[in-house]
Amino acid sequence: MMKSYNEIEGRFKRLTDLNGALAVLHWDSAAMMPAGGATARADQITALSLVCHDMMVDPALNELLSKAELESDKSPEDFDNWHLANLAEMRRMWQHANAVPSDLVEALSQATSACEMVWRDARPDNDFARLEPLLTHLVSLVREVAAAKSEALGISPYDALLDEFDPGTRSADIDPLFDGLDIFLPEFLQQVKEVQSSGRQPEPLNGSFAVADQRALAERLMNQLGFDFDFGRLDVSHHPFTGGVPDDVRITTRYYEDDFTQSLMGVLHETGHALYERGLPSQWRHQPVGTARGMTMHESQSLIIEMLACRSEEFVRYLTPLVKETFGGSGPAWEAENLVRHYRRVQPGLIRVDADEVTYPAHVILRYRLEKNLISGDLTVADLPGAWNEAMQKSLGLTPPDDRDGVLQDIHWPSGAFGYFPTYTLGAMAAAQLFDAAQNDNDAVVIGLEHGDFGPLLSWLRTHVHALGSLMSTQDLMVRATKKPLDVEVYKAHLTRRYLGG
Amino acid sequence: MMKSYNEIEGRFKRLTDLNGALAVLHWDSAAMMPAGGATARADQITALSLVCHDMMVDPALNELLSKAELESDKSPEDFDNWHLANLAEMRRMWQHANAVPSDLVEALSQATSACEMVWRDARPDNDFARLEPLLTHLVSLVREVAAAKSEALGISPYDALLDEFDPGTRSADIDPLFDGLDIFLPEFLQQVKEVQSSGRQPEPLNGSFAVADQRALAERLMNQLGFDFDFGRLDVSHHPFTGGVPDDVRITTRYYEDDFTQSLMGVLHETGHALYERGLPSQWRHQPVGTARGMTMHESQSLIIEMLACRSEEFVRYLTPLVKETFGGSGPAWEAENLVRHYRRVQPGLIRVDADEVTYPAHVILRYRLEKNLISGDLTVADLPGAWNEAMQKSLGLTPPDDRDGVLQDIHWPSGAFGYFPTYTLGAMAAAQLFDAAQNDNDAVVIGLEHGDFGPLLSWLRTHVHALGSLMSTQDLMVRATKKPLDVEVYKAHLTRRYLGG
Repeated sequence: MMKSYNEIEGRFKRLTDLNGALAVLHWDSAAMMPAGGATARADQITALSLVCHDMMVDPALNELLSKAELESDKSPEDFDNWHLANLAEMRRMWQHANAVPSDLVEALSQATSACEMVWRDARPDNDFARLEPLLTHLVSLVREVAAAKSEALGISPYDALLDEFDPGTRSADIDPLFDGLDIFLPEFLQQVKEVQSSGRQPEPLNGSFAVADQRALAERLMNQLGFDFDFGRLDVSHHPFTGGVPDDVRITTRYYEDDFTQSLMGVLHETGHALYERGLPSQWRHQPVGTARGMTMHESQSLIIEMLACRSEEFVRYLTPLVKETFGGSGPAWEAENLVRHYRRVQPGLIRVDADEVTYPAHVILRYRLEKNLISGDLTVADLPGAWNEAMQKSLGLTPPDDRDGVLQDIHWPSGAFGYFPTYTLGAMAAAQLFDAAQNDNDAVVIGLEHGDFGPLLSWLRTHVHALGSLMSTQDLMVRATKKPLDVEVYKAHLTRRYLGG
Repeated sequence: MMKSYNEIEGRFKRLTDLNGALAVLHWDSAAMMPAGGATARADQITALSLVCHDMMVDPALNELLSKAELESDKSPEDFDNWHLANLAEMRRMWQHANAVPSDLVEALSQATSACEMVWRDARPDNDFARLEPLLTHLVSLVREVAAAKSEALGISPYDALLDEFDPGTRSADIDPLFDGLDIFLPEFLQQVKEVQSSGRQPEPLNGSFAVADQRALAERLMNQLGFDFDFGRLDVSHHPFTGGVPDDVRITTRYYEDDFTQSLMGVLHETGHALYERGLPSQWRHQPVGTARGMTMHESQSLIIEMLACRSEEFVRYLTPLVKETFGGSGPAWEAENLVRHYRRVQPGLIRVDADEVTYPAHVILRYRLEKNLISGDLTVADLPGAWNEAMQKSLGLTPPDDRDGVLQDIHWPSGAFGYFPTYTLGAMAAAQLFDAAQNDNDAVVIGLEHGDFGPLLSWLRTHVHALGSLMSTQDLMVRATKKPLDVEVYKAHLTRRYLGG
């Protein structure tokens, strides 16, 4: 007996297809759309989002879900783990969509658009005062949403927001991990700085690097990583991202003619995201259980490729002759050792997106704590710049000279995304732990990197992460793949090995 | 009292936005999508089309429409011409959508996909037999649709199909026009061939023409025509087309490295379509009355730019130095006179899309008559190849050596489009008539072409065609702009002037 269950699968199939259409519209907005098309596009996206929302709040869906849940109780033999996980995901999505009254959804959507638009000018103008009233209003609406979802899901308001981006992850999981890093990092950073300042400094890689050359190298490496251009594209956008759908994954980058290193690692990072999407279980393409597990796992897949595999000495040694061949460089700056030094330079700075592997977590922990306090009401938006600057001084010893390079730097809050930031560092920790397990399972993972062969690594990731979709929680997935839940010690060991030698 | 009317405007706003989203998906499929994304894309398009169809067959929409029609009767002072025309368009769209039962819509959609897919292989394989059963099935379904729509709209079955592409146009309008051409063309063609064979022959424009150069010239001309790249794009696709939405018009072309002339005129043609979309009344952007009037007017706008303006001696004289400068050509082949001869070469051939201005109508009239007989049941699909070859021999004196260059050449029928073909030639006639009126109204229209200034022509088209959207029927629009309905004599005069001198 799966009659109702099968009927909901049909509804979620349509929903997945409409979400796929939305993904194409978003990609196009960033990569193709001329400026004048923005208003029409916003209208298209709003109309399509409303259609999806209407499908989720249709009372008939709730009835079907309840009937399907009864079916799974009464005929457990018909439901395998995938069906059950799919049903649970459907219910979770239903709860998120139905917890919030329609007028609040509408108000939030308008406040988000308005706030994001003002932020776009307020940041270059260094004008937090202009943003403040809009962000205050937005935060008050987000708090209402959080309260409503908290009620519906039976978890804390902040956890209810976190659950949108990283299903199942709770503050109680994050706090001990971040506290552990917070204790470890300051002294570790001191040690790394001492080691690096007494060692050889990276020599600059000077030159003019044609976009066509950078692109050709990027495509070559994407191919080697296993990116299939019959099922995806590489384009240009202001902010690099991965979009599209699993059978048509679109990644973007941004080229700088005076520096090839950023775009190169950026492409490898996005390729990691793309490989995850592409490797999701094809038999569940159109169902919630067939989607990526959440932003922590997604970030782990980009970072395992970029940080663990491609910034390894093994791979940089392989990469160096390709870089020389592509750009015609020569001399000591173009030796592998210098490229490694370049990609491992640790230097505290004000800007998160420019941060290195060691200082990045400090940026995330700062934001995580501030946004928790905003949601709990312990911090007002008016007090946010002061709290930001104080925390930045405490964690990295730097005070932003202005809000442009401080509290105004990220689009996340003005765009209504609270509960997203922690997934960056959870993803970094998961990446280190998964890579550790992969190389323990198969020597060829690291050996392959020496000649640009990502086959063994990709094969391991396909089996242990990609093919599982949303079958289990992030923590269960980590336990299954690495024999333990997310563990700060593995991450500390990785950082220590890489930056203090070994 | 416009309460119900205003409520439907809200529904059609959403519908227009969803159709805009569909337009982006279709453009992307042709211009960007990797092959592997086809299935996912088809699913997205199906899901979104179903959403739009569901909105149109929602019984509440019919109730609202009826109430709004009552409002317009009771409070005529609240409804201006635009409101009334909008309401009439909404009702027409409603009739088309609701005339056909859902299972027939579904069956047609499946038959169309299947037939189109088989056609893609059957044409290169020259295998009409493989297509025949699928096309027979498709035609039987299209006849059912035509019968249902005939009943709902109170017009003949074929006219009901025509009405989808060209609202308000009927066979009774077309027949005398096409009959007039059918009488005129054979002898005219003879005369043109005699004149051309006794005159100087066009010299070939040999060379290798880099795509980047062709593109740069195309963009330059598009700019001069008034195409605003802040509101549109130029890309590449196998079959050139115009897509997108009025604030983001996407045109495509296809470049041949051994011949720049095709792509050049192709881009000018699509730019004509794009200018129409872009010039539609912005205050009615999201309503049926704000859309293009139909395929006849659309084709007239591409042909007025390509055929009337850009193949004029005035413009080719202006164009020649740009072409020389772009491609570095020199010698007699690169003189304006030769380019004119090149663009005016008349030569009966088997393939419609390669046909010149004089023989093109013969291809269209042939298809129009055959498809009318298919819909009436006077012709079977099995007899179609024979009927095609016979008609081709009769009209152009050519018999296709095989079906590949005969009945299999066009995608229209296998994709379910019956009633589309006549709009090509109606559009050509409308173009000639509109251009005639424009140059009578303002000398600067033609004088402008001599120095590449399309301002006066575009301004006339904006006022007399673009800004009117779907406010009135095609015929009323022609009468308003040119003081008479579509008139075959104007078209004959244009052809005579251009090809027999003057």
